[in-house]
Amino acid sequence: MLKAGRGVLYSIDLVKKSKVDLQLVREKLNSSLLSDVLDGMGIRSQCMTQGIRPVYPGAVVVGTAHTMLMVDIHEPEQETFKLQLEGIDALKKDDLMVVASNSSTSAALWGELLSTAARCRGASGAVIDGLARDIRQIEEMMFPVFASGLRPISSKGRVVAIGYGCRIRCGGVNVEEGDLVVGDVDGVTVVPDTAIEEAIERALERANSEKKTRKELLAGSTLSAVYAKYGTI
Amino acid sequence: MLKAGRGVLYSIDLVKKSKVDLQLVREKLNSSLLSDVLDGMGIRSQCMTQGIRPVYPGAVVVGTAHTMLMVDIHEPEQETFKLQLEGIDALKKDDLMVVASNSSTSAALWGELLSTAARCRGASGAVIDGLARDIRQIEEMMFPVFASGLRPISSKGRVVAIGYGCRIRCGGVNVEEGDLVVGDVDGVTVVPDTAIEEAIERALERANSEKKTRKELLAGSTLSAVYAKYGTI
Amino acid sequence: MLKAGRGVLYSIDLVKKSKVDLQLVREKLNSSLLSDVLDGMGIRSQCMTQGIRPVYPGAVVVGTAHTMLMVDIHEPEQETFKLQLEGIDALKKDDLMVVASNSSTSAALWGELLSTAARCRGASGAVIDGLARDIRQIEEMMFPVFASGLRPISSKGRVVAIGYGCRIRCGGVNVEEGDLVVGDVDGVTVVPDTAIEEAIERALERANSEKKTRKELLAGSTLSAVYAKYGTI
Amino acid sequence: MLKAGRGVLYSIDLVKKSKVDLQLVREKLNSSLLSDVLDGMGIRSQCMTQGIRPVYPGAVVVGTAHTMLMVDIHEPEQETFKLQLEGIDALKKDDLMVVASNSSTSAALWGELLSTAARCRGASGAVIDGLARDIRQIEEMMFPVFASGLRPISSKGRVVAIGYGCRIRCGGVNVEEGDLVVGDVDGVTVVPDTAIEEAIERALERANSEKKTRKELLAGSTLSAVYAKYGTI
Amino acid sequence: MLKAGRGVLYSIDLVKKSKVDLQLVREKLNSSLLSDVLDGMGIRSQCMTQGIRPVYPGAVVVGTAHTMLMVDIHEPEQETFKLQLEGIDALKKDDLMVVASNSSTSAALWGELLSTAARCRGASGAVIDGLARDIRQIEEMMFPVFASGLRPISSKGRVVAIGYGCRIRCGGVNVEEGDLVVGDVDGVTVVPDTAIEEAIERALERANSEKKTRKELLAGSTLSAVYAKYGTI
Amino acid sequence: MLKAGRGVLYSIDLVKKSKVDLQLVREKLNSSLLSDVLDGMGIRSQCMTQGIRPVYPGAVVVGTAHTMLMVDIHEPEQETFKLQLEGIDALKKDDLMVVASNSSTSAALWGELLSTAARCRGASGAVIDGLARDIRQIEEMMFPVFASGLRPISSKGRVVAIGYGCRIRCGGVNVEEGDLVVGDVDGVTVVPDTAIEEAIERALERANSEKKTRKELLAGSTLSAVYAKYGTI
Repeated sequence: MLKAGRGVLYSIDLVKKSKVDLQLVREKLNSSLLSDVLDGMGIRSQCMTQGIRPVYPGAVVVGTAHTMLMVDIHEPEQETFKLQLEGIDALKKDDLMVVASNSSTSAALWGELLSTAARCRGASGAVIDGLARDIRQIEEMMFPVFASGLRPISSKGRVVAIGYGCRIRCGGVNVEEGDLVVGDVDGVTVVPDTAIEEAIERALERANSEKKTRKELLAGSTLSAVYAKYGTI
Repeated sequence: MLKAGRGVLYSIDLVKKSKVDLQLVREKLNSSLLSDVLDGMGIRSQCMTQGIRPVYPGAVVVGTAHTMLMVDIHEPEQETFKLQLEGIDALKKDDLMVVASNSSTSAALWGELLSTAARCRGASGAVIDGLARDIRQIEEMMFPVFASGLRPISSKGRVVAIGYGCRIRCGGVNVEEGDLVVGDVDGVTVVPDTAIEEAIERALERANSEKKTRKELLAGSTLSAVYAKYGTI
Repeated sequence: MLKAGRGVLYSIDLVKKSKVDLQLVREKLNSSLLSDVLDGMGIRSQCMTQGIRPVYPGAVVVGTAHTMLMVDIHEPEQETFKLQLEGIDALKKDDLMVVASNSSTSAALWGELLSTAARCRGASGAVIDGLARDIRQIEEMMFPVFASGLRPISSKGRVVAIGYGCRIRCGGVNVEEGDLVVGDVDGVTVVPDTAIEEAIERALERANSEKKTRKELLAGSTLSAVYAKYGTI
Repeated sequence: MLKAGRGVLYSIDLVKKSKVDLQLVREKLNSSLLSDVLDGMGIRSQCMTQGIRPVYPGAVVVGTAHTMLMVDIHEPEQETFKLQLEGIDALKKDDLMVVASNSSTSAALWGELLSTAARCRGASGAVIDGLARDIRQIEEMMFPVFASGLRPISSKGRVVAIGYGCRIRCGGVNVEEGDLVVGDVDGVTVVPDTAIEEAIERALERANSEKKTRKELLAGSTLSAVYAKYGTI
Repeated sequence: MLKAGRGVLYSIDLVKKSKVDLQLVREKLNSSLLSDVLDGMGIRSQCMTQGIRPVYPGAVVVGTAHTMLMVDIHEPEQETFKLQLEGIDALKKDDLMVVASNSSTSAALWGELLSTAARCRGASGAVIDGLARDIRQIEEMMFPVFASGLRPISSKGRVVAIGYGCRIRCGGVNVEEGDLVVGDVDGVTVVPDTAIEEAIERALERANSEKKTRKELLAGSTLSAVYAKYGTI
Repeated sequence: MLKAGRGVLYSIDLVKKSKVDLQLVREKLNSSLLSDVLDGMGIRSQCMTQGIRPVYPGAVVVGTAHTMLMVDIHEPEQETFKLQLEGIDALKKDDLMVVASNSSTSAALWGELLSTAARCRGASGAVIDGLARDIRQIEEMMFPVFASGLRPISSKGRVVAIGYGCRIRCGGVNVEEGDLVVGDVDGVTVVPDTAIEEAIERALERANSEKKTRKELLAGSTLSAVYAKYGTI
């Protein structure tokens, strides 16, 4: 029922998304740089908790959020796949599947077949506030997935989608359809839709200014001296 | 005292074990496939919690469970090794040591010397609901161990075995002497003794049917379409 | 304010430190061996909890502790770097930065620039009872860091140093300026200042005696037999 | 969506319920006696976890379960009351509202107005795997409520019902429409629908046999002597 | 050091405080009513977590926040009382002491003597995100204290104040000097300084409108009918 | 097996116990006063964690510890009562049963019949690092019990004693046979056997000196002034 009326909102987001140069983000930026500039813009709660990790070493996700909300149930005979599959089928190019489940640990919410389907729709990865499985195959596919843990158990009859395209809370961060999500070894940062352009611009600048600091430190300056000079570190 | 009378049960299990083709399981199956078919057989609580992980990348365990129950104590001078060593010495070919400790975090319950001894008895690995150590050496030996964490501290005077061959609860799953245990990157699945033959047969079939689904998805089918066609995913 | 008067203590420690042959520790010893000999000396609570892990595979830290105590605050505009930078600038050759934060999860307390500065002072690594970031760059630098997790978020306005050179509790272990800290894949062991010489001597001996046990086990002895013979395992 | 088709099942349960003499249960039995006889019948996981407590001293609940499943959402503007109110309006005489929320702590799922409405329908109390509020008024009404905590915050826009009459997991126990639920100072025991008659009969007997044991202990017998005599304690 | 410059801010707050009619709040309002109207004003994270409870039955706190930030340390010999005592001595009439400690469990941060001193300054109670002690005497004094637990152990050498009058995070809520804090059996609600007047006005109205709903429910209306009529419950 | 050889130690303790005037402790002292004087004697880890609470309001325990260690098992058919009953039957006048279970939550380790038997042996109460039940009857008996929670479920086949009279860790504190244990609303303090006489003497003095401080505070002195005068608070 959370799903109602989401179609329209979604199409509007889609137009906005085309403005983001995801390739540039992938090459030049990362989760820490983006977190720092969001801090500077007064947007201060945008990094997921430390438990959401890449499921294989080196996995990096960059994409616009397509959200899903899942919940634990306890009726084995219950039909549980319909809305979940529909939500995944709605993925579009450069979308990143972001699934919240109130930190469910009862079953794997993501696996190889869902990864295969998501990639065929053009999705760039998945971030799950919950468990995943089929990690050997997912690593072979090089489909980047972040999750809070792994377990071999199917979600069938255990966890069900109750909405997609809705606002979710994933890893302690509110995520909305269309937000920019960047995840790497340091963790996952969410850039709200309305802040994307400014955040990217600022992050590119900041990447440059850090080079100066690093250079002075390598030349032997103390942190206190660098900090006194630039007012930041 | 939990140990009493276990000898007899154990010999019976041994006969049963010989029926399982562990090599086939190692080559064709994995923890997720087996979990799915157990679900289909109505056996629904057989995957350990997500905290029990391989202690080095790529470790895979397949074997019949030889169980041990350990508990935290607080008397440094206490003799703590006798029953534990006896239980490990009782390992036989293709046995997998499965140690439950009510999730003890006070000391490492497994290390290099125990791995060396276990391998010499023919054991195929160890699954510990507790901590391990000597990981560099264990990785060099390629002796697959799963544990809930690592810590350099010895169990001597801290954790003691109170029984082996008994029913234990390990990673949230009941495990009995003779159960089939399969652990890989996705986690650890326990196949109850009485379900082993049917589970393996079904899992070999399921491995085949998943190939079809994957092929259709790769050809561009939506998940909803595949699900409508096969009634599963 | 915890900092007051620490300068003097610190210089005294420095003299003592020069007696420790850190290169020998790096080559011959490890966290588990040192934990075992501390047990034998009746010093029984010296291994950090299992949550403090190397931030990249293979990271090893060996050094004398230079301690810092940090705490969470909630005033974004607050000046938070001054004492922290001063404490890091005070690092000397072979020092290991050890940071306690009562297990803060609100921000990364360590990153690339701090690693760069610490290395320029001669520090051999960092152990953080809290989060870190910039892991890709830290791995490239091969600057060994241990932390309880990773998150992209800056400590600026979130976590502040309130003292350095003071006694801290890090990963459940009391650590004082000048203690020997050894961390590897098994975890982190802290050798109190006054026990360093004896612990190293004993550990070198123990490394030899374990070879005998291993050899007998490889030759087919049971654990019980070896234990009966040597009274240890 | 979990709700679909529940109406029919529900009417069937209703017939069955009339067989239970709830007044007898209230006067003669309690949660511990019922747990003991369920153990004896081989039904061993029927006591909720210790966190579910009466919201005022002396509260006791006895009733047949009418279940509801609620989940956390994060859309303040979302309509969240419809299904929840419908489910409460469906309460009948001697029903006990049992609400599962995967241990939500985000808001109070029960309060004074819901208690008032439930009592007007004839309900005998509520058991919530989540939070409650309006405790002063609820205590004045003497409407017995068990919950896992208290918080002043409304569930509006925070927690939503996704089904009622369905199987739920509440306090670690599976609960189905029509089960007998008995809660008192010791905690909450759930008697499955099909075991109610036998459990009540056995519990009445056991209440008598415990009197003998107590009498012998008061007369000075040791526990070991009583145990040797009766084979139980 | 967090303390610096707080004096000025504090005097400004004091003027503002005089506008709040605390007696009216005590008599007519409560934590749940205030939470509901804050929700209606779009201020949605103002209720402390469920772990902060009255230390004796019936304790109610109403007052303007005087904040303190404390942190765990590990130097027994360290002077720990100075700033804490100074902060408590700064309490004024109708102030409520609100202490944050990042949920410290190492010692009691509040007891009888601090209660005695606080009451002599005119303070109306204390809310502690941490432990308290001397509960028998505190109950005899009828000095209302809320805490997250009780333990007999002194904070001396264990927990130290690092600032007062600063912004803190207590029970998951940001609290600033001068905020209105209301705690009762349901929990603790914090009304931000700037929202106090409007929140009180709205809450008095809401108390009236709830009477109507209650009356209709008592007259037999269903929740759905009442909700359809008023658009709220 | 932990039990072996405990008989002798126990008789020695018994002689020592007769020196403690428990009635004096009950009337004049409490857990907080004793904790403070232990701090002053450099014995600093003697208060149990805040989770161990009286099972009914007003319960107070004072007695010499008779210890028991219990552990979770998972074999329903297992004989679990023998050693437990034997250990309780060994209670003597003024003994306090102290049970450690590594914080088991699987079943109630204490109830009415055990309380009845313990009282008949002369025991003064029980402190359980685990769950209890039969609270209504225990309150009627006025047999003071402290526990970490309540649950209606029997320990039969779930938790087993593996030793008594041994050193245990209960609520985070090491407890040995013969230690003085004092529990009240503030929590539980353990006075080691060898420190009992000095601790009682110091606590009686401290009770007097606190009266002075309280009097000055009531007369209007600030905490800072009192602290400057006496060097303590």
